[in-house]
Amino acid sequence: MSVAGEASPVTPFGDRLAAAVERRGSQLVLGLDPDPARLWPDAVGARAEWRANLVTELADVERSAGLVGAGAERVARLEAAAAVLAHCAGVIDAVGPSCVAVKPQLACFERLGFGGWLALEATCAHARERGLLVLADGKRGDVPVTARAYAQALVGATPTPFGTADGLAADAITVNPLLGGDALAPLVTVARTGGRGVFALVRTSNPGAGDLFDLVLDGGGRVWERIAAAVHEAGVPGPASGLADVGAVCGATAPVHLERMRELMPHTPFLLPGVGAQGGEVEALAPAVAPGRGAALVTASRSIVDAHETARGDPADAARAEAERLRAAAWELR
Amino acid sequence: MSVAGEASPVTPFGDRLAAAVERRGSQLVLGLDPDPARLWPDAVGARAEWRANLVTELADVERSAGLVGAGAERVARLEAAAAVLAHCAGVIDAVGPSCVAVKPQLACFERLGFGGWLALEATCAHARERGLLVLADGKRGDVPVTARAYAQALVGATPTPFGTADGLAADAITVNPLLGGDALAPLVTVARTGGRGVFALVRTSNPGAGDLFDLVLDGGGRVWERIAAAVHEAGVPGPASGLADVGAVCGATAPVHLERMRELMPHTPFLLPGVGAQGGEVEALAPAVAPGRGAALVTASRSIVDAHETARGDPADAARAEAERLRAAAWELR
Repeated sequence: MSVAGEASPVTPFGDRLAAAVERRGSQLVLGLDPDPARLWPDAVGARAEWRANLVTELADVERSAGLVGAGAERVARLEAAAAVLAHCAGVIDAVGPSCVAVKPQLACFERLGFGGWLALEATCAHARERGLLVLADGKRGDVPVTARAYAQALVGATPTPFGTADGLAADAITVNPLLGGDALAPLVTVARTGGRGVFALVRTSNPGAGDLFDLVLDGGGRVWERIAAAVHEAGVPGPASGLADVGAVCGATAPVHLERMRELMPHTPFLLPGVGAQGGEVEALAPAVAPGRGAALVTASRSIVDAHETARGDPADAARAEAERLRAAAWELR
Repeated sequence: MSVAGEASPVTPFGDRLAAAVERRGSQLVLGLDPDPARLWPDAVGARAEWRANLVTELADVERSAGLVGAGAERVARLEAAAAVLAHCAGVIDAVGPSCVAVKPQLACFERLGFGGWLALEATCAHARERGLLVLADGKRGDVPVTARAYAQALVGATPTPFGTADGLAADAITVNPLLGGDALAPLVTVARTGGRGVFALVRTSNPGAGDLFDLVLDGGGRVWERIAAAVHEAGVPGPASGLADVGAVCGATAPVHLERMRELMPHTPFLLPGVGAQGGEVEALAPAVAPGRGAALVTASRSIVDAHETARGDPADAARAEAERLRAAAWELR
């Protein structure tokens, strides 16, 4: 990235995000959570020669690194990584035009080992080439020195004796705020230097989210409200859009919270998962959009990618139709 | 791993841990947080032919995956990944005999891309060959479906159309409990199936840890005490050792909390970071060891690996001396 070497000032993430939403005519974020057991059939069958070549090369690398283990399992994950890459590229080609960003779920790539991480990198590159932002969904968080390493991995670069080592070069990352302000700071600082953003978990959409997020504090207020205040504090609004460069992940299945969230975080972009497969409904999200369309990013993954399982027909056509439906519904929110 | 195919019952993690501590005569966990700018000189210079070969093969893989970018940065991170692997192998060879486990910090490998993840896998394999447990330090946590994917990545395996894909096969992982009980459950369940363990953040050692962990709740108690109770609930003690398979990460720089932690979590193995570079002192950790030596794992990384910077002399010799000093100090605790 060589951020330090750039002569022109960096455009803040909030402004980049707002401009991308307008340019693409979409607030829809395509979640990429590839399950090797549910890939599009074309991805498993097609490009056999390319896949075989990549798998052979990955196996060579393993041997050179000293990794020699049970053969069948090792090859399975290399094959699966190549298929996941083909699948993600196919999904992006099909529904990318309806979206402003992709949100790869890092866990789903990590489970295929270093070949999976390669598939992640190539998927992000593919999305960028098609004009999409990349939101790396890893929910990272650790003590400050390690938080900085995560920032270098995902939105920065690392100095080495061999030169600067590029990271994933995501436009934004999701982070876990449990470790406190000094642990969030390096993630925000590194991201901001490159005009990139951070989305912190404020309240998630799973049933158990209430266990800690909803605890009532001595003196009033809940844990998630304390996190929301810290997220508001940490962000700097872009001069063009007024949108901050620190966003919030807000569970869309608890829309009752959205008005209060917007009150506590007036300039904060919201990343709203839970639409579709997790049960949220896009129409319930209106309070999120008050500061502008870029302030309400609507995420869907399985409901788009697996649309053919209910709608029948070609996976790409079914996904395209569902993505366009969600894009239009979100765009109507005012 | 083929856990399902094993005929013999799996030994629970608490019992495996206690047995390993006795067998190795050590509670010391070697943290591996490789900084490419501070590798042991031998790792940067030595094995030039092996390194060049690995870098060439990694570059081939990149091309096959469609990754073509700014050349110099790409090669830098491949070179750095190969050097990090050589460094970690050298550190393990030097100080492994004083340790019961290694704790690779995933962030430090991820920042070198897919080659870094390959270095992580090969480092873990190297540690296992030398009889060490592997605690993968990634502080992972997400909604249940994604938490399961992280478990598959680090302590499990993933079904694919090509066969079962092995994960990192760590003996235990660190996890972030913010998302609640239903998000912790898949991590614990997958780990337990394979006789592996989970260490949840109960309170960390950074100055900002107080921002959320120390908040006082309506009705009394603090957030970290609520997490501690959940960790105690989630763990199942092994029949031989009485140690649970869900552990706790407890910041060693706040030893005032350790007695209360042990009260709330009587069977829980504690992973105690912060010794050495972060300012903790091993002698302050006595309350942790009450249920047995395996219940108090002492972690150190930079204080061991960078010992030559203050002690002078050969890096391996300096690291060996410091590791042995920490091992002996921890072993004396009763």
